[in-house]
Amino acid sequence: MELFFLGTGSGVPSKDRNVSSLVLRLLEERGTTWIFDCGEATQHQILNTNIRPRRIEKIFITHLHGDHIYGLPGLLSSRSFQGGETAVTIYGPIGLKSYIDISLQVSGTKLKYPLHIKEIFEEGTLFEDDACIVEVIKLQHGLESYGYLIKEKDKLGELLPERLKELGITPGPIYQQIKQQEETQLNDGQVIFRKNVIGPAKKGRKVAILGDTRYIPSLKEKLIGTDVLVHEATFAGDEEEMAYDYYHSTVKQAATLAKYSEVGELILTHLSSRYHGDAIKQLEAEAKAIFENTTLAFDFYQHKVMQK
Amino acid sequence: MELFFLGTGSGVPSKDRNVSSLVLRLLEERGTTWIFDCGEATQHQILNTNIRPRRIEKIFITHLHGDHIYGLPGLLSSRSFQGGETAVTIYGPIGLKSYIDISLQVSGTKLKYPLHIKEIFEEGTLFEDDACIVEVIKLQHGLESYGYLIKEKDKLGELLPERLKELGITPGPIYQQIKQQEETQLNDGQVIFRKNVIGPAKKGRKVAILGDTRYIPSLKEKLIGTDVLVHEATFAGDEEEMAYDYYHSTVKQAATLAKYSEVGELILTHLSSRYHGDAIKQLEAEAKAIFENTTLAFDFYQHKVMQK
Ligand SMILES: [Zn+2]
Ligand SMILES: [Zn+2]
Repeated sequence: MELFFLGTGSGVPSKDRNVSSLVLRLLEERGTTWIFDCGEATQHQILNTNIRPRRIEKIFITHLHGDHIYGLPGLLSSRSFQGGETAVTIYGPIGLKSYIDISLQVSGTKLKYPLHIKEIFEEGTLFEDDACIVEVIKLQHGLESYGYLIKEKDKLGELLPERLKELGITPGPIYQQIKQQEETQLNDGQVIFRKNVIGPAKKGRKVAILGDTRYIPSLKEKLIGTDVLVHEATFAGDEEEMAYDYYHSTVKQAATLAKYSEVGELILTHLSSRYHGDAIKQLEAEAKAIFENTTLAFDFYQHKVMQK
Repeated sequence: MELFFLGTGSGVPSKDRNVSSLVLRLLEERGTTWIFDCGEATQHQILNTNIRPRRIEKIFITHLHGDHIYGLPGLLSSRSFQGGETAVTIYGPIGLKSYIDISLQVSGTKLKYPLHIKEIFEEGTLFEDDACIVEVIKLQHGLESYGYLIKEKDKLGELLPERLKELGITPGPIYQQIKQQEETQLNDGQVIFRKNVIGPAKKGRKVAILGDTRYIPSLKEKLIGTDVLVHEATFAGDEEEMAYDYYHSTVKQAATLAKYSEVGELILTHLSSRYHGDAIKQLEAEAKAIFENTTLAFDFYQHKVMQK
């Protein structure tokens, strides 16, 4: 599980930072790639990476501002052109479907893979399978804006072979059975309770990827147990009023939320193009003074998601 | 009058060539910039040039394939964000308006300048003013595709001061009057006919910028007097069947059209990403064997438009 930042700027592309896109690589976990937001030229950024568009399984859009969606039609079309065949599901605010449909339709684009577009109507569970669950939460922005909470499910611990041998059970297919069921009756009538022969559960990780938003202190309840929080930081620490007026956050606000939510790590993105070089270092210092475990993302920054 | 190629590839962007966009700089002529097609990341290409988006006056779309239009919403939005205030007019096939309207609407984009979208219904004169005229012609492609013929109007020659002095007219505001009118009566009753006191007219240039198309031999009538022809060349010379099937042209076909149309120069663009390095040189040689004055465009190639 790895984050790969493709665009970390805000509003308009600059030479330093492209508009928003963030990839969550789940290659080990499920052999696929998820994308969060898809600003213009996301497919161009991908050309400079080892990301393979055919692996894309899901795309999550936080909100419909152009710097977060204008790369979608091109990415979807090129994925088809390059032979992508597996289905893609896109989640995002109401309006997303008409935008994608019109873009593909007027350009005469027929995708060679199934495309599902699921518009979001409310907070709650967006997706769940055996391995993970994705929840969506509402933020405060000029347009409807969402945050996505990605939680791996806890995994069963490993079978303890010593314990099994003590019980006289020799290695074989029965081991798999004992792991899959809460209790297993052996041929000799003996009943094995899984909880007695298994190590501690492996806790799943939790990543929170938020779209553009004002500072919302109450988010901390929803961020409980978050290992990595990705938060926007469009403005410097002293620009609170500006941030409020434009529905964005300052680096200090993002760091404060990280601190009170007791997340493991904070990664800041969506930085205004007004900040360069030393100004960026200054932003980082402001954030770290509040929450030490902070990183400022840059285009092509990769970050392994670790348990906190 | 200068051509500035921003994207010279076809279909999908590659590291070498972006998708289609071509700028016609009319800085000396009218202080503005015209754009022909606007594939994704055209605004990103512009970041690497001295082209100023606020100077954009007109955008001409040849056809609605994604590689020719997906950069429009971003370019229009960023121009507004960066303070562009003068009106922009976009010309293109039917469907263009709904694509632009929906893209700007779902993203909550309110442009700070007037935007006019004129959909094309038929061949003919698209635009005309004192200085130039733009005609549109139909091509043959998978979608409705157009070519644009940009003709500068011929300019009056210069007044001949020697001739005027022979007629006893001394320099003054009267000179301007004599140039503006076909005949001018002087205070002494003498009538001056402009044609007798003026040098030869300065012929306007003609540029033809064609969208994606199959080879159409009959275009040569419409290309009469063309100084510079910009033509697609998606395939190598021996791929005629492929070109026909995919509604494109080969380099040989484009060169043949240039030859029979007796244009001044031919510039080839929209090259498939299958051709690199030596293969590109091979394409160039194929074209030049038929029409010597041929150039293969590349991204950021600039070309002054000269009278043939
Ligand atoms: Zn944004
Ligand atoms: Zn094309």
